[in-house]
Amino acid sequence: MSRTFLATLHFDGTAFVGWQRQSAGRSVQAEFEQVLERLFGRRTAAHAAGRTDAGVHAIGLPISFPAPIKWTPDALRRALNALLPNDCWVASVRTMQTGFHARRSALARRYRYVIGTDDGAASPFRRPFEWALGRPLDDAALGAAASLFRGEHDFRAFAAKGEPKPHYDCTVTTATWEPREGNRGVTFHVEANRFLHHMVRMMVGTMVDVGLGRRPVADVERLLDRRDNQETSPPAPPQGLYFVAAAYPEDCYADVTGDPNAALQSA
Amino acid sequence: MSRTFLATLHFDGTAFVGWQRQSAGRSVQAEFEQVLERLFGRRTAAHAAGRTDAGVHAIGLPISFPAPIKWTPDALRRALNALLPNDCWVASVRTMQTGFHARRSALARRYRYVIGTDDGAASPFRRPFEWALGRPLDDAALGAAASLFRGEHDFRAFAAKGEPKPHYDCTVTTATWEPREGNRGVTFHVEANRFLHHMVRMMVGTMVDVGLGRRPVADVERLLDRRDNQETSPPAPPQGLYFVAAAYPEDCYADVTGDPNAALQSA
Repeated sequence: MSRTFLATLHFDGTAFVGWQRQSAGRSVQAEFEQVLERLFGRRTAAHAAGRTDAGVHAIGLPISFPAPIKWTPDALRRALNALLPNDCWVASVRTMQTGFHARRSALARRYRYVIGTDDGAASPFRRPFEWALGRPLDDAALGAAASLFRGEHDFRAFAAKGEPKPHYDCTVTTATWEPREGNRGVTFHVEANRFLHHMVRMMVGTMVDVGLGRRPVADVERLLDRRDNQETSPPAPPQGLYFVAAAYPEDCYADVTGDPNAALQSA
Repeated sequence: MSRTFLATLHFDGTAFVGWQRQSAGRSVQAEFEQVLERLFGRRTAAHAAGRTDAGVHAIGLPISFPAPIKWTPDALRRALNALLPNDCWVASVRTMQTGFHARRSALARRYRYVIGTDDGAASPFRRPFEWALGRPLDDAALGAAASLFRGEHDFRAFAAKGEPKPHYDCTVTTATWEPREGNRGVTFHVEANRFLHHMVRMMVGTMVDVGLGRRPVADVERLLDRRDNQETSPPAPPQGLYFVAAAYPEDCYADVTGDPNAALQSA
């Protein structure tokens, strides 16, 4: 007998090729599944709410997996944290209804992207965790560009070329820039029902060009009308990007602790 | 012809054996001197205001070195940052009077020690940069213990056993605990004319035992009367410790930019 659990994972993406297991390189998924196998004595698949690219961080990536019924959420959390490598950490574990799947059940995902506009962004304590741009950005232009992303759009122009998909429509419910403490720069908060590959980084790359005065705000609208990414700015570097949270229907949770969407709302 | 310069160095100590060049392992000094040799075409010694142990960080370690007279501080800063590894960063470079020596000329040094008392201190974004204690500390006890360190004392009980020294007297001018933002824990600020090997970490280790209720505040006074470290608590782990700044006499500076001790005062 097994039960489905949801672990909320934080990881420093610096030394990973991303969440997804790949033919070469150190993936978070492989490390995580290796720990599950060690705990349960059998191969166990783990599913994340979304992919992350190499170098991208997570401060709340939901991971679903089955575990033998004798495990409690608290025992699982302690066991996972004892065995996971130092650059991964499980903040919480919850019990889910049978059939729950961290990716397929997700209603929305939230990311943030952190930019350092000051000189100190190059410091070794900040550089692995933000885009050390080191130049000022026009806040009004950033805000105007972000507002154009809100709503339902075809985001083909903001996706890496890859496998064709049935459709490229995404509904962006949050897209806002917020100043960071201490005049360090800005953070972009974005939430949508789905994200395409490289989407946040291409959105940020284009908005930064707008914020630097290299392209007009209206370009965002123009790009959203395009059917390719030929005129989109290069993606922002991965180390500024964080997977923050995903939201699930309330009835996915088998426990009753608090508001199931609190993670998304408070993040 | 050469001139003496002072670089203010930041480094993430995680992957270093410390500042000091050693027979084995990656030292900051070796990396720094290698860059100087590459820039100047000759072996060049660099001196730091103080040693740091393996894993200890710096957010303002003064480094003195000679450079050919054609170099300006700004050109040096840019060249150093272009060639230093990613875990090192020079915040500023200043021109000094002949004979200046970052260690010998220093009047005072300042360190800080960061402790995480909350559960989230174990996160991969915090664990390399603080002591992830994960338990609450008694702030009043910490403050009382810190106050006993202030003034001139023989700190033999708070020093690693090593080479005998002419004397162990240190004058502590600052020793205070400050709460961190967001209920994350506490930071210890300490300034003294000199520090013995492991001194800050042994002071913190002992004060944390006091803050956890494991030993009485009066133990600090008792230890300061001892002539060995047999009853001192184990040193706090290195990753919570930061070299913050050193102070120099005003007439060491050959340039005239601002207050020479501003680094120490604002840190």
